[in-house]
Amino acid sequence: MYVPVDHLDHRVRGGWTPSGAIDAGLPAHANRWLSARTGLSAPPTPVAPDSGLVVPESELPAQVRAVLISIVGAGHLLVERADRLARAGGMSYVDLLGRRGAGELAVPDAVVCPADADQVRDVVVACASHDIAIVPFGGGTSVVGGVTALRGDKTAVVVLDLYRLDRLLSVDPVSRLAVFQAGSTAPEAERRLAEHGLTLGHFPQSYERATLGGFAATRSSGQASAGYGRFEEMVSALRVATPRGDWRVGVAPASAAGPDLRHLVVGSEGTLGVITELTLRVRPRPVVDRYEGFIVDGFDAGVDTVRTLAQNGALGTVTRLSDPQETEVGFALSGGWKITALRAYLRARGVAEPCLLIIGWEGQSAREMYARRRTTVTLLGKTVRLGTVAGEKWRHGRFAGPRQRDALMDIGMCVETLETATHWSTIAELRENVRKALVDSLTEAGRRPVVACHISHSYETGASLYFTTLVPRDLTDPVGQWQRAKRAASEAIVGLGTITHHHAVGVDHASYLSAEVGSLGVEVLRAVKCELDPDGVLNPGKLI
Amino acid sequence: MYVPVDHLDHRVRGGWTPSGAIDAGLPAHANRWLSARTGLSAPPTPVAPDSGLVVPESELPAQVRAVLISIVGAGHLLVERADRLARAGGMSYVDLLGRRGAGELAVPDAVVCPADADQVRDVVVACASHDIAIVPFGGGTSVVGGVTALRGDKTAVVVLDLYRLDRLLSVDPVSRLAVFQAGSTAPEAERRLAEHGLTLGHFPQSYERATLGGFAATRSSGQASAGYGRFEEMVSALRVATPRGDWRVGVAPASAAGPDLRHLVVGSEGTLGVITELTLRVRPRPVVDRYEGFIVDGFDAGVDTVRTLAQNGALGTVTRLSDPQETEVGFALSGGWKITALRAYLRARGVAEPCLLIIGWEGQSAREMYARRRTTVTLLGKTVRLGTVAGEKWRHGRFAGPRQRDALMDIGMCVETLETATHWSTIAELRENVRKALVDSLTEAGRRPVVACHISHSYETGASLYFTTLVPRDLTDPVGQWQRAKRAASEAIVGLGTITHHHAVGVDHASYLSAEVGSLGVEVLRAVKCELDPDGVLNPGKLI
Repeated sequence: MYVPVDHLDHRVRGGWTPSGAIDAGLPAHANRWLSARTGLSAPPTPVAPDSGLVVPESELPAQVRAVLISIVGAGHLLVERADRLARAGGMSYVDLLGRRGAGELAVPDAVVCPADADQVRDVVVACASHDIAIVPFGGGTSVVGGVTALRGDKTAVVVLDLYRLDRLLSVDPVSRLAVFQAGSTAPEAERRLAEHGLTLGHFPQSYERATLGGFAATRSSGQASAGYGRFEEMVSALRVATPRGDWRVGVAPASAAGPDLRHLVVGSEGTLGVITELTLRVRPRPVVDRYEGFIVDGFDAGVDTVRTLAQNGALGTVTRLSDPQETEVGFALSGGWKITALRAYLRARGVAEPCLLIIGWEGQSAREMYARRRTTVTLLGKTVRLGTVAGEKWRHGRFAGPRQRDALMDIGMCVETLETATHWSTIAELRENVRKALVDSLTEAGRRPVVACHISHSYETGASLYFTTLVPRDLTDPVGQWQRAKRAASEAIVGLGTITHHHAVGVDHASYLSAEVGSLGVEVLRAVKCELDPDGVLNPGKLI
Repeated sequence: MYVPVDHLDHRVRGGWTPSGAIDAGLPAHANRWLSARTGLSAPPTPVAPDSGLVVPESELPAQVRAVLISIVGAGHLLVERADRLARAGGMSYVDLLGRRGAGELAVPDAVVCPADADQVRDVVVACASHDIAIVPFGGGTSVVGGVTALRGDKTAVVVLDLYRLDRLLSVDPVSRLAVFQAGSTAPEAERRLAEHGLTLGHFPQSYERATLGGFAATRSSGQASAGYGRFEEMVSALRVATPRGDWRVGVAPASAAGPDLRHLVVGSEGTLGVITELTLRVRPRPVVDRYEGFIVDGFDAGVDTVRTLAQNGALGTVTRLSDPQETEVGFALSGGWKITALRAYLRARGVAEPCLLIIGWEGQSAREMYARRRTTVTLLGKTVRLGTVAGEKWRHGRFAGPRQRDALMDIGMCVETLETATHWSTIAELRENVRKALVDSLTEAGRRPVVACHISHSYETGASLYFTTLVPRDLTDPVGQWQRAKRAASEAIVGLGTITHHHAVGVDHASYLSAEVGSLGVEVLRAVKCELDPDGVLNPGKLI
């Protein structure tokens, strides 16, 4: 028997875009701008055929195969090349390079696909007793190496694909709670909640493919976090499969019954247990919405504006400020006479450093929504209003980033993102330091990097900073090119902000964790892992 | 040298009321009502003189005394009877019985009063290496045995009184953050923040005496939680003294850098470390406020009303619903012609089961505050408005509970509170079950308990339930009388709600923790404790 990898075939292709989708590539003016601005001169890089990748034979012992098949059934233990390859790593730039034939690919020895939480628990317990490493796998969208199939010191490594755990188990409309299986993808969860007039309101850029369990495991934050909160704030209860059996945490909306152990599971990235079921706070679906664009002159003024909104309860459901560089990239990749006209208009208005500010409001009634919009707009200060066209344009493309990355990689660009967060009083310094680290480490003869940044998650005490870097790829050492830049950026972050605001730790940030939580903090995490996963089979090499 | 116990002299007296305060006792009509309603017939119970209490000699070894004195100075290691007695236990009914001569008192062998975070760390490390148990002590207001000076299996037990750590270390007005030492009392912290135009907004009933470190250690929630959040939501960063040295957690407004370890320290009740410094989110002080009273007919209707407010972002800064019994107790203890007139008025309006609903709004401008008030009032449904007189009456007495308890104890009542929280769909069932458990276990010949309840903390998914029980004291076994009732109530709570919404675990709830977080949860906590406090000297017998 064979389970198709349809829902993962984009991965085999080496990117985010489904193989059947019409991929228009980038417009010609975008290519021209990239050549002029960054020095891009390489010819388009064809995607290496899947068949060219080296995939070692599965080393899963026959005895373990038999045990796993006895739990999940023969059709749900996959050892074919294509199935294993489809779960090799996540969706970072380096992962995609690996799937395009540059750099290494960690391919699991097998993929096990349990049907429900009980089967997950049984698989986890069985793997622990047979010295098999387990990599929990939801949408596979990690950009920090969180689903890389590392074997650690174990005999073999299996990817535990949760795609069959896709059910909405129950809804309590009075308490506004819904119980989901952890493998539900975000769009599927939204579709099922919509039947009840409800929404989760969690829309990260990985929305199209990511799963609810993955959101919890990585402490995800969506584009509408100002309106709906971070994912951790939606988690009311969790069921977790550990090598020592099932563990359930969370019984009430709030509690003083000791430390909040939900916050130990949330963000544990599959290293302490596999999240199998989630009780999530849900809300009525919005019936009205309005997205608008504004231009602020200068990033510092924009930060002041967003801070004022955040500290006065006046953020939109979505509130997102681009720095001058990101605004410029957006203009350049859009192109066209409208952008030319807009540039001229802004110049005429004396705007020296245009920063795009997108604000979206969603609500249960036009009256309520417009009241909130009024509160926001009153506090905006000096801005140029671009109206709903700009807002809708952002909304239309809100999940397009990963596809655009595919296209940029196709033409030979190194393109990757990283993010952090800090308090308002340090945000300017942190942005400058990270920008400088990235620009300095990537500037070489003939290569001029573009480093763009935005704020998309704002709090009373601070905000996130999200950086996108574009530079022509170093064809001789594409992995090293980015890794050096990433290291420089991470070192600029440590001490001023968190090493990650919503991408999680994975492999990429693991060496910076002790600087953030202290060596005692890391030892505490190790002690917890030792208690729950004494054999160390859960997601080796991640987090700690 | 001798440090006065002025700030704790109420404790020596056996209650909350300072010894110099004018204690008016209860009005005559309150006594009459209690007799008629509960069967109270005992004569007033005089407070046993402090000198009658048995206080064993200090068993702190001379060598340890010398070590501790070398850290804090001779004047800050207290071994006098009065100083030790003043830190014997918290403020639960059973604690107060103990200080009134009924039941046992756990008196520490010494009291150590460090000057700052460094000294706290040195004291903790020294105690760990000398097998001395440590009980961190802030305001000493625990009602669950959280500061009871249990020695465990150690040589001796010292109370670590943090009263000298009372400074505001820094303020970042841009990021709205303030760094405090942990021993700052809430009123002192508010006074210092007021100089900067700021407030913390944390007003639990223990406000007058409790400390910031205690709020964090116990996962406290204040009366204005709807407006300012639970204390855990205010905690941005913590410095913690552990036997393995200092530990700092929290670097950014939000992070995905693994599990949120702040949530492991918050609620750890001094068992994992001693919180010495806190970085807290602060807000501008309100410049306008308005408190009003409303009457809803029946608790179920009241619950629906509060739920509607909570789920529409329309709660007041304070929102508090009393059940019919609590409303009745309030009317009865107030008395007077106004209450008589109010009762007649409500009868005439056809209100069968009056439930008092107090809502307070606070804001930065009248315009903004009244806009929020309008949102609330629009959603209230059918209520009788009592106006600001009832609201101001509640506000005037908001911290009076503990003093009223002193007076009730003086006249021979058993009076204690307990609390829980659950989701909206289970709240009626939980209230009924706990009521029944308390009433059944306390009803005896000649003793008829009053069990009153309110909701004071509401969330989108549920709310807290806070029970106050009044019954004539069993003079032969006053401790057993309450302990039986507490056990019955706790067993009614387990499985339906959390064992504690904001009082913490301490000694009283420790045996129910595994039902709430699972045996794996308890083992995880033990593993963390083992890592940070390998000798087990920190607050023995609490939490786990």
